[in-house]
This record gives sequence, structure tokens and C-alpha cells, in this order.
Amino acid sequence: MNLPIGIIDSGVGGLTVAREIMRQLPRETIYYLGDTARCPYGPRQADEVKAFTWELTRYLQQYNIKMLVIACNTATAVVLNEIQNELDIPVIGVIDPGARSAIKQTKNNKIGVLGTVGTIKSEAYDYALRSIHQKVEVSSLACPKFVPIVESGEYEGQTATKVVEETLAGLKDSDIDTLILGCTHYPLLQPKIQSYLGEHVEIINSGDETAREVSTILHFRNLYNKQTDIPEHRFFTTGSSTIFSRIALKWLQLEKIDIESIHL
Amino acid sequence: MNLPIGIIDSGVGGLTVAREIMRQLPRETIYYLGDTARCPYGPRQADEVKAFTWELTRYLQQYNIKMLVIACNTATAVVLNEIQNELDIPVIGVIDPGARSAIKQTKNNKIGVLGTVGTIKSEAYDYALRSIHQKVEVSSLACPKFVPIVESGEYEGQTATKVVEETLAGLKDSDIDTLILGCTHYPLLQPKIQSYLGEHVEIINSGDETAREVSTILHFRNLYNKQTDIPEHRFFTTGSSTIFSRIALKWLQLEKIDIESIHL
Repeated sequence: MNLPIGIIDSGVGGLTVAREIMRQLPRETIYYLGDTARCPYGPRQADEVKAFTWELTRYLQQYNIKMLVIACNTATAVVLNEIQNELDIPVIGVIDPGARSAIKQTKNNKIGVLGTVGTIKSEAYDYALRSIHQKVEVSSLACPKFVPIVESGEYEGQTATKVVEETLAGLKDSDIDTLILGCTHYPLLQPKIQSYLGEHVEIINSGDETAREVSTILHFRNLYNKQTDIPEHRFFTTGSSTIFSRIALKWLQLEKIDIESIHL
Repeated sequence: MNLPIGIIDSGVGGLTVAREIMRQLPRETIYYLGDTARCPYGPRQADEVKAFTWELTRYLQQYNIKMLVIACNTATAVVLNEIQNELDIPVIGVIDPGARSAIKQTKNNKIGVLGTVGTIKSEAYDYALRSIHQKVEVSSLACPKFVPIVESGEYEGQTATKVVEETLAGLKDSDIDTLILGCTHYPLLQPKIQSYLGEHVEIINSGDETAREVSTILHFRNLYNKQTDIPEHRFFTTGSSTIFSRIALKWLQLEKIDIESIHL
């Protein structure tokens, strides 16, 4: 079905999910809306996150999207179930795909989760993991300094190395064998996280896994786009299109991108 | 929902899928039916495979299964769509999960597929891969000697090494970076396949991936078992319960198993 897949996020982080959907499902058209003006969602109260996420959802619904991806862990934790119940299209969050993949991956059933304060406080990963597998041990850690480092573009430098090492010190000697990056910004820090924790820890990137589940659900609902035209993606932001454009070009490895600034 | 998941297979090969479902979804009850008396399906005509697979399906339907997994690549290639259309429970084959996982994994879009003569001839993997991603290059190879080696229990010895090397010689210098084991028997040969092709080839085990998709679909249909009783799996075979039992105990790493011999 040649309708767009909608992706909503608190800002640019969800572009890591968009990138993976574009790579794994190159026939599909994506409409992405990043709420950059009100980013980050991580430290906000649940009610506020809920209201904002509904505004993003309503905005993309006008384009007759065939599926909605909530590419923000904080929003997924707070409001996924509610939106799933109210919409009659499939709605996919980023938490369950990461949880399922971690369970597939782990050999000792000891799984770490990194996330924003909001995501970790919600215990959404604990719930998702334990509702599937009651014997999993979960070590969660809030990483409030990670999103600012990534959003500022400094995720490759020395400061980032220091922040990663300080934040993860408590996990360094744990015996987790699998670590979920429970925030769509964190894959940009993945090389530093991997290098600090060591190669024996398998890192689960929620974006990759979500793209895979998008594919599974499209298939089961018979919603794959079967046409072979080159898809025309659209990108919307509530904030500055210049900043968004700079990051999107780099992360999506595109040569040109049109960003549409909108007001909610 | 505390109903069993049905798994059907041409013989014992699907136990590799059952094992993964038991590991990834330890709350779920499994009813497994292996058509050992008529194994293998690989060299049979499509009509025969279709008729046999419907018989297995009808047998497990009497137990009010909540989902059906066709854990045999040959049967999936021939009859998955038909059974999906006729049953009102979710029906999952082993081909699409492997295909989706390979697409997620590959970096150069060059994917190898190993399978039985029936599976390779059906081009089911080519179709599954290309319907998702039109630019994937697929190298397929029928491995008719693999199933007999595994069924005879000789998959760890020198003969197996030789068979693997001879069969895969044509793939040795290809530039695939991802290889799908398109038959549920082949994971038993995975160490030899990996060692011959080298560590730069990522091997996709359809069983692991199918278990993960079973989890995804149970979740989306709200069919997870939420009770915490220890599940009481049942195993049925059309052949000798002694042979089936020996293999099942070893592969599933159980201490005790009851196998029920049935006639279709």
C-alpha cells in the first residue's frame, strides 16, 4: 500500500530509526515529524509528554499514514498503549522491539538498559522484558547527560568519552551480557559505549530492531508498498529547519533534504 | 492467553525453532508435531508437501492452538500463504523472519541462502528478500546432503566437515556478507559452516528469528500468556517415538520428555 509510514519523535533522535527503516525498507515512504522546539522529552512530566505526543500524532494523521512509529522511548513509555488503542492503524513504539531483541540475544539473562530519566523512571523496559521472560535480571541506568551531548553534535569528542565513562562506571563490573540503548540518541555514542564496556557486551540498538518490527507488522497486515517508485520522504520540525537539516543530512547521509517548519 | 502455540515440521528439524521459542518465551506452551514418518519434505513434489502440511495443521487445530508456526522451510515455501488465508489464527513461517533479519544484518546487500532442493527451487527466499528490498543480490544453494547428515546424528564428525566443505565450495569466494540457513536442520551444522566460510559472514538462523517474530505477533495480537505456571509442552510424532525422543532430549537439553506417537 503506497501510503507513508509516520514517524514522530521529540527531536532529531528518531532519525536513527528513520535511517534504519529507509535502509531496511527502501520502497517505503516516510513522513517524519520532530518536535525539536520542545525537545528533550526525557525530563518532562508524563502528562506533558502525553499531550505533546498526541499533538504530533494528530498532525501526521492528516496525511493518511498507514502506520505510526513512536520513535522516542520517553513517549513510548508514557503513551504508546493509549495511542495504540485509539488509532485503527498499527502503532509501534521503540521499547518492545529492543526488549525482544535483547531476550533473543542474551545468554545469561542479565540485561542492562540505558535511558533518559523519564524512560528509566517509568520502568517500561523492566515491564516489557519481564512480561515476556520472568527470569530476566534488569540493570537500568538513567543517562541524563547523553542527549545534550548528542544534540550539540559533540558525540565524537573527548568530552563525550568522559561523560560515557563517568555515567557507565557503575555498569562496568556488572555481569550483563546485553545492553539496550533505550534512547534513540544513544546509537551516536555506541562506539564509545562499546569500547568502554568491552566487546563481550552485545549492544542492542532500538532503531534497528524497530525497523525490523515495522517490516514484520507491515507484512502481517499486508501493507508493504509494492510499487517501485523512489519514495518521496518528508521531514517536518517544530523548530529551526536549519539545525534540523544539518543533522539530518549527516545522519541520513543524504546530499539534499527539504525540511518543513510547522507550528502545532 | 493460556493456549498452546502449535509448531509443525517434517520431522525433528523444527525442534531448533521450538527450542528458541521455549528460550525466548518461557511462559508459552508448545504443541509440536513432527511428521518423522514422511521426512524429508525437501525432495517431494509441491502437491504432496501441501497435502501433508494441511494434515499436520488439522491435527493441531483440535487442541485450540492460538498460533501456528510452520517450522519447515519447504512447507513454508509451498503452502504458508494458503494456510494463512484459511485459518483465523496467526500463521508464521520460517522464511520471512530469516529474510527480514538478513536485510537488517547485511551491509553490502549480498545475501546467501542455503536450503533443500524444494526450498531453493521455489525461490521463496528470493521473493521474500526482493519484495522488501529490490536491490538485494541473492546467491542460493541447494544442500541435499545436509539433512541426512543431521538426521543421522553425524553432524559433529569428519564426514560432516567434508560434506559442508564440498557443498559450500562455490560460495567460498563469493562476496556475500550474510548467509541464511534456510532449513531448520542446518543450525546443527552452523559451527562447520561458519568455520569454512569465515567470521566475516554473518549467519542467520531462521529458528532464532522466527521465535522473535512469534513474540512480536503474540504481542501485537495481545496473545501473550500472562500466567506464570510452568508450561506443559506436548510432542507428537508420526514416526518412532524412541528416535524422536533421543534427538529431542539432546537438542532441547531436557532430562525427560514424553513423545506421543500418532497416525494421521
